[in-house]
Amino acid sequence: MGKVVAGASMSLDGYVAGPDQTGFDHLFTWYNNGDVEMPVGGEGTRLDLKMSAVSAKLFADMIASTGALVVGRFLYDQTNAWNGQHPMQCPVVVLTHNPPEQHSEHFVFVTEGIEAAVAKAKELAGGKDVGLNSGTITRQALQAGLVDEIEVDLVPVILGGGTPFFGEVTNAPVKLTGPVSVREGIDVTHLRYLVTKA
Amino acid sequence: MGKVVAGASMSLDGYVAGPDQTGFDHLFTWYNNGDVEMPVGGEGTRLDLKMSAVSAKLFADMIASTGALVVGRFLYDQTNAWNGQHPMQCPVVVLTHNPPEQHSEHFVFVTEGIEAAVAKAKELAGGKDVGLNSGTITRQALQAGLVDEIEVDLVPVILGGGTPFFGEVTNAPVKLTGPVSVREGIDVTHLRYLVTKA
Repeated sequence: MGKVVAGASMSLDGYVAGPDQTGFDHLFTWYNNGDVEMPVGGEGTRLDLKMSAVSAKLFADMIASTGALVVGRFLYDQTNAWNGQHPMQCPVVVLTHNPPEQHSEHFVFVTEGIEAAVAKAKELAGGKDVGLNSGTITRQALQAGLVDEIEVDLVPVILGGGTPFFGEVTNAPVKLTGPVSVREGIDVTHLRYLVTKA
Repeated sequence: MGKVVAGASMSLDGYVAGPDQTGFDHLFTWYNNGDVEMPVGGEGTRLDLKMSAVSAKLFADMIASTGALVVGRFLYDQTNAWNGQHPMQCPVVVLTHNPPEQHSEHFVFVTEGIEAAVAKAKELAGGKDVGLNSGTITRQALQAGLVDEIEVDLVPVILGGGTPFFGEVTNAPVKLTGPVSVREGIDVTHLRYLVTKA
């Protein structure tokens, strides 16, 4: 059985987006500041990233180990449904109160809450990991005790506000174990933690 | 000339204190979870900490390199003026609108704002570094462009709210360089960043 992994590029002050959806140039600098080519996506959604060797290895491992994603409706809309398919090319479960009438075959919509969304993603993941993106979904999943690991790509910038990765988690403090892995990319520190189970 | 270094133990979600001044048991676990004795403070204010070897080395270096501190009035009151002297045994500049009528000789009170407080601390530091503790002081100093380095002792816990280390910095995004140092203690990751100057 795969794990449930919440992951995000996060500023040192804890944000996955700056005020008014700014800051992405800083948060995702590490996607394109190295010399290892990392093509992601398929026909029509291809992105040619160029990362440090460290980040590329982690990124490739993450894509290989992830069988499905759970995302929120905001991210789905904001990315225009990734123009039809998520660059990781795995099934994506969208948690929403209002499923769209039309959508591509690569998306599944769940309205019954975070437990149902994660359960659906596990079913689709075929034994691989389930990835959670990003803030609201991670907070809900942490509160429901559904998260096994947290992968933070910690970026050297202070954004001063915006969308927190973790938010006001109601069952805080949530104790973590680790980091069990620390890897230095260029302008990013990849940290992996386990969520300590009671 | 010494540097101005803002430092704090911070949760993964960016807080130096949890909601209603909770969370310190988590944030300062690393002060007492190792086997290297680290006595700090003097007569009447002595604390016997026991840290990992990695944390003890960093802690001792920080004490040796710090010539003065700048703190806010809240921290001064909350700690009861550290019972007369800060455990680091260096001069402490307290930024406040209302200096107390009586205080020990180890404290200096500045009312003219963060620039004046840092200038006074530099004068007292005798060429060593000036340390800033913690949230409000750090935010004000970042906004005034006075911070050279940031030392984060990153603790594996999500506090879900409380006092942020950085807060709503008005000149964000503040770009950092680094981490220039990453050291793993027990239940803490010591990260040092340089503030990128324009």
